[in-house]
Amino acid sequence: MTLDRLFKPTYLSFMSILAPLHDVLARSGLDAVAIVPGANFRRVFNTDFHQMERPLVVIVPREGEPVAVVPNLEMGSFTPIGFPGKTFDWRDEAGYMNAFMSAGAALPHLRQGARIGVEGQRMRVFDLLALQKALPGAEFADIHAEISAIRLHKTAAEIELQRKAIRLSESALEDTLSEIKVGMTETEIEGILLRNLFSHGADGLAFAPIVAAGDNAAKPHAHARPDYRIKPGDALLFDFGGSYQGYSADITRTFFVKEVSDYDRAFYETVLAANTKGRDVSRAGITASDVDDAVQKVLEQSQFTEFRRHKTGHGLGLDVHEAPQIMRGNMQVLEPGMVFTIEPGLYRSGEAGVRIEDDVVVTEDGIECLTSFPRELRLVG
Amino acid sequence: MTLDRLFKPTYLSFMSILAPLHDVLARSGLDAVAIVPGANFRRVFNTDFHQMERPLVVIVPREGEPVAVVPNLEMGSFTPIGFPGKTFDWRDEAGYMNAFMSAGAALPHLRQGARIGVEGQRMRVFDLLALQKALPGAEFADIHAEISAIRLHKTAAEIELQRKAIRLSESALEDTLSEIKVGMTETEIEGILLRNLFSHGADGLAFAPIVAAGDNAAKPHAHARPDYRIKPGDALLFDFGGSYQGYSADITRTFFVKEVSDYDRAFYETVLAANTKGRDVSRAGITASDVDDAVQKVLEQSQFTEFRRHKTGHGLGLDVHEAPQIMRGNMQVLEPGMVFTIEPGLYRSGEAGVRIEDDVVVTEDGIECLTSFPRELRLVG
Repeated sequence: MTLDRLFKPTYLSFMSILAPLHDVLARSGLDAVAIVPGANFRRVFNTDFHQMERPLVVIVPREGEPVAVVPNLEMGSFTPIGFPGKTFDWRDEAGYMNAFMSAGAALPHLRQGARIGVEGQRMRVFDLLALQKALPGAEFADIHAEISAIRLHKTAAEIELQRKAIRLSESALEDTLSEIKVGMTETEIEGILLRNLFSHGADGLAFAPIVAAGDNAAKPHAHARPDYRIKPGDALLFDFGGSYQGYSADITRTFFVKEVSDYDRAFYETVLAANTKGRDVSRAGITASDVDDAVQKVLEQSQFTEFRRHKTGHGLGLDVHEAPQIMRGNMQVLEPGMVFTIEPGLYRSGEAGVRIEDDVVVTEDGIECLTSFPRELRLVG
Repeated sequence: MTLDRLFKPTYLSFMSILAPLHDVLARSGLDAVAIVPGANFRRVFNTDFHQMERPLVVIVPREGEPVAVVPNLEMGSFTPIGFPGKTFDWRDEAGYMNAFMSAGAALPHLRQGARIGVEGQRMRVFDLLALQKALPGAEFADIHAEISAIRLHKTAAEIELQRKAIRLSESALEDTLSEIKVGMTETEIEGILLRNLFSHGADGLAFAPIVAAGDNAAKPHAHARPDYRIKPGDALLFDFGGSYQGYSADITRTFFVKEVSDYDRAFYETVLAANTKGRDVSRAGITASDVDDAVQKVLEQSQFTEFRRHKTGHGLGLDVHEAPQIMRGNMQVLEPGMVFTIEPGLYRSGEAGVRIEDDVVVTEDGIECLTSFPRELRLVG
């Protein structure tokens, strides 16, 4: 065994912080990739930065030294990540454009005709405009899906964090249900849920929770109302998630307040059947389209087909909505380690909505359902 | 009094939901403005939408009917805002591009040579690319500042919500301090703070809070560490805010654990003097640059000038960082109703950092400081 062989792995792991992005470049055939803080950045560099008025961009060319543009006040956090390239920092009083121009000058091969991939759903327009000015003649392509593919397969450690986020969120929901009374407003209930999430150890929110009753539950992304008091017979929908160390739960359960009509019970059971179908069919080797197709067919073949509004689900990880989109037409083959939601819903505008959402991870021989909150129709209040 | 005069105000108020954007168009001389969900959208339409993988864009031309592209599942929430124009909705299975193309076809005057303003710090690249495809030949300009200027002056109702967010955040901080003990980790303290924020009625977070001790406090945007236990003599910095109905607190206080060296006391007092200077000089009629200049001079003329890292502050409203930037070179004249932070800081890399941040509103005869948490050096733990 030579010293070369002995040290190569260490050397590689030291240099390979950018390996996922070099893989993206190899697959896409582009000349460079530019990423900004967010889920992909966090997966690559194991840290993240506030995204506000100060642009921070990392540019990784296929060949040559990578370059970063970093706000000076972030340098204390940026330096420890061991970025293997040139960093151009900028101070508030100077503005960011000079740092971008210096970065561009350090990348002379990324000018006329060079093709650079960016995260279209994450990068903001002012980042792009600064890059275009710094690299005149380069073409920018939205390869959000290709870059985000570096996060398609979750590690065991990631799934464990997701499990923790889900467990604390389910405990918070159970505690919340025990406090609900007829006559409470949606915002009161939302406040109870939030308090319980953080009591159970959430360190953030996956997204602003949805707590919607009655006709408001018929809006898939409703806002809690301060002036609507829940009453017997209302559907009461919670779509929420605590997060933990960057990983999130995304759970929906729908209850009924005190009582439920036969019609609403059939409505609920239809959604539950679609949810069950989704969990039953999901496994490695079939496509995301196959899952959505199976779920949609349950809804389509019911008496409630007209109340369908959306796809079955989405990937879940450092981004709350990410690949794989569980949607007809998405021919992505499911593979072990992919995590996604199964969340069919039906929405009777002006009356009620029901959605039941679970988070699952694809395993070698099927799926593991990470969420375990009971799905049977339940009366609350 | 004619019927015309009687009904005109009602008619105008019904039509004037877009008036702030028409003002932007009049001031900028552009042919259209396109906005996406976020703070400006919320100010105009009094509601907001999740910004994830589904684009939602509103295009308001100077002349002719406005147009919106809206995900179908949001239509139940979008319809009630009374958008005075054509709406093109799209479903997950169809994708968004056809809706954008239809929107473009409905705006034939926004083609070759038309100039369209967008929010560069908010709009994402994939929104822009879809607009560029739908409106070939149009030019897009980043007029984030001009659009966001519709939120520069806060109403009394907005300030009252901000006051509420600040009060609950200060109560949460006071409760948190009473629970702190030497040996706790930064993440444990962060967890206590989060729990207290939601117990006191926060309905969201202004941003992921910063709880940083010792050398970590020297990073302006530090992340709480799970493995660092606070010890006597550490600086302990909190930069955090609960939010309430869309409005946020943004407060920083720095404490010392158990004891403080004479050097750290002088360091702290320098930052406090700069903070005090900022609150003393701020008033209508001077510029944002004037405020920063006065604050920076206190730091520059101290023995700690080398430890400066950033501007004095930023506007605070529906966005946590917005105009006016309190920064040398920003000649924006302060006017009654503007809300901003005063948050000088000093950062000794590897040792300690101190920042003291207040939120103020400009009044007719000075400022009102919305934050009231004591600023005197305080030992905790």
